[in-house]
Amino acid sequence: MKPPKISPRIAVYGLGFVGKQLAGFALDKGWDIVGAYNRAGDKVGQDLGTLLGREAIGLLVEDCDHADYSKLDADLAFVAVSDRLEDNLISYQRLMSAGANILCHGAESCNPFRLNPDVAKKIHALALQHKVTFTGGGIWDMTRIWAGILSVGPNISINTMTHTSFTDIARQGVHLLRFCGAGLTVDEFKAKDVAGGGGLGGIAIIPPLCVVDALGFEVKDVKEQLEPIIWEEDHQSHWLNETIPAGHVIGTRMKVDISTVEGITIRNCFEYRDFKPDEVEQMIWKVEGEPSMEIRVVREASHLASASSLFNRTPDVLSAEPGIKELWKYAPLKPSLFL
Amino acid sequence: MKPPKISPRIAVYGLGFVGKQLAGFALDKGWDIVGAYNRAGDKVGQDLGTLLGREAIGLLVEDCDHADYSKLDADLAFVAVSDRLEDNLISYQRLMSAGANILCHGAESCNPFRLNPDVAKKIHALALQHKVTFTGGGIWDMTRIWAGILSVGPNISINTMTHTSFTDIARQGVHLLRFCGAGLTVDEFKAKDVAGGGGLGGIAIIPPLCVVDALGFEVKDVKEQLEPIIWEEDHQSHWLNETIPAGHVIGTRMKVDISTVEGITIRNCFEYRDFKPDEVEQMIWKVEGEPSMEIRVVREASHLASASSLFNRTPDVLSAEPGIKELWKYAPLKPSLFL
Repeated sequence: MKPPKISPRIAVYGLGFVGKQLAGFALDKGWDIVGAYNRAGDKVGQDLGTLLGREAIGLLVEDCDHADYSKLDADLAFVAVSDRLEDNLISYQRLMSAGANILCHGAESCNPFRLNPDVAKKIHALALQHKVTFTGGGIWDMTRIWAGILSVGPNISINTMTHTSFTDIARQGVHLLRFCGAGLTVDEFKAKDVAGGGGLGGIAIIPPLCVVDALGFEVKDVKEQLEPIIWEEDHQSHWLNETIPAGHVIGTRMKVDISTVEGITIRNCFEYRDFKPDEVEQMIWKVEGEPSMEIRVVREASHLASASSLFNRTPDVLSAEPGIKELWKYAPLKPSLFL
Repeated sequence: MKPPKISPRIAVYGLGFVGKQLAGFALDKGWDIVGAYNRAGDKVGQDLGTLLGREAIGLLVEDCDHADYSKLDADLAFVAVSDRLEDNLISYQRLMSAGANILCHGAESCNPFRLNPDVAKKIHALALQHKVTFTGGGIWDMTRIWAGILSVGPNISINTMTHTSFTDIARQGVHLLRFCGAGLTVDEFKAKDVAGGGGLGGIAIIPPLCVVDALGFEVKDVKEQLEPIIWEEDHQSHWLNETIPAGHVIGTRMKVDISTVEGITIRNCFEYRDFKPDEVEQMIWKVEGEPSMEIRVVREASHLASASSLFNRTPDVLSAEPGIKELWKYAPLKPSLFL
C-alpha cells in the first residue's frame, strides 16, 4: 500500500508560520519550488531558502499583488493567508488561472459550500475551467474531522455527539493568542469584537459541519455562542511573557449546537486559550448511542501538525477530479514518509 | 453522502454472543434472515426469533454439520465461531460455495495472508471462483486498526508507534475472562497453555500487523511475549462473582514488538483481564515523530461494539470486488443508521 513517488512543482502563497513550514517540507522531499508569494514587506525579494533559515535556492519571494502569474508552472499551490474564503479568493484566482491545484490552509476552505456558498461557486467554476482541484485542510483534518467521523463508525444508533477541545493556540503562532483575546479586559474583548466576523465568529462551526456532511446528516439548525474565558487567579503566560490578571481574558470559548433532521444533536465546545503548565492539548469526540464510545486526540508536539496535515494531502489533490473536493471525500490522511 | 438503502438476504453461522447480536441487528433493519446455523446442541431446531428472545420468525436454527447449503440463497453470511481461520475454513467453504459473501468475526480473518497464508490462499481462490468477497472485522476495526492508521496521518516522520490497551474482556462474554486465565494460579496458567496457540498466542500480533500493512511498512521481525497478569491484593470479580486471591491470575498481558525495514518500531501491550470498578476500557496509539500525537479510544458501552462494527461493514462487502478484501482497504467504518 505504499503510494507511488511523486515530484510535483510547488508554489507557496503566504509565507507566515504555516507557509514557511510547507515550503520546508517540500524542499525536504526534493520537490522544486517554482513560486513563492507574500504580501508587500521585508520578505519580498528575499531568497526563499534564506527566509527559511537554509541555504539559498535561487528563488526570490515575489510581491503577491505584482507578480506575473502567467509564467507560473506549478502543479500545486499551498495557500496560507486567511481563514476566510472571501479574503483568499484573489489568491485562488491567480493560482488556478495559472493551472495550479490548490491546498488551502484557511479554516473556511475545509467546507466552502457551507461557509460561503457564493464564493464556493466561483472557486468551483474556476477549478472546473482550469481542470484543477481545490481542497482545504490543516490540523482539523485528522484531529477533529476524521476523528469525529471515526467515532461513530461502530454505531447502529446515535443520540448525541459531543466535541470538546482545548487548544494551546499560541503553538500555531503567538499572535493567535492575542487574536483570541488573551490579556484583554472583558470590555476590551467586546469592544475589539474578538467574537465577531472579523475575529473568531463562524470558525467553530466548521469542523462539526464537516463531520455532519461526511456522515450525511441533514442540518436543521446551527447555534453558535462565543464568550471570553476568564480565570479567578492570575496567570503567568509563558507565551506572552506577562501576567494576565485574574478576571482578564485568557482566550475564547466557542459553543456550537447543531441539530439535525435525524434527531441527532452535535454539541461542541472549543477553547482557544493560554495553557497552565501541566495541561495537554486535546480534542474529544464523545458519542452517546449504541455503542457509546469516545475518541480523544492528544496533540503533544502539534506546532507543525497543521502544516504537515495539509502537506500530506498533496498526493490526494494531485490525483483528484477537478473542482472543490472536501477532505472527507478522500481517504483519511496518510503520512508522507514514502513520498 | 447517505448510502443507498440495501436489503440483503442474510445467513448467520454461529449463534453465540456475537452471532445473536448480528442476527438481531439484521432483523431490526427488516432484512430477511434466510439461514441460521449452529453446532449440535439445544439451539438447533429452535426458531431463530425465539432464540433471540423475540417473536418467532419461522426460521429454524440448523445443525451446521448436517444442513443442506445448496438450498441457501443468501447475499451475505456472518460467521462468528472461532478466532482461527483453520477452524473456520469449513464454514467459509459451505457458505461461499452457496454464493454468499462473508463477514467473519474471527480475529485472524482481519489479515488472513499474514496469519495463515495457506488457508488464506484457499479462501481467496474459493471467493474468486464463486465471485464473492471475504472480509474479517469486529471491534478492532475502528478501535485499534483505523485508530492506529489515523494516528500517523499528519506525520512527515515517525520514530515509534506504541499501542497500549486495557480490555474488560468479559463484556464480550464471561467465558472469555476464563479463557484469559482469570482465577487460575500461575502454575495452572502455564499448564493450561493460556498463552499457547490454542489460547491467546498469536492474537495480539493481528491489529498491529493490519496497521503496518495499511501503512505500507515492510515487516522485519515480530516478537510476541505473553504473561499472566497478577495483582498484589485480592480482587473481587463482579463478572465471576468470586474473589481472585492475591498472586492468582487476573488475565493475560500480550506484548508485541514489530520492527520494520523503514526503521519504525511498533510496540504493543494488550491486557485482556478483569477490571477494578473505576477502570475504563481504552486503546491508545501514541506516536513519537513529527508531529507527536496520541489517539485514545475509550470504549464505554462496548458490549455490542464488536458485532455492530462487523455489521456496519455490510454495504462495503456487498459492493466489493471478489476475493479477500481486508478492512483497511475499504474506507473507515461508517454507522449503519441509514441502511
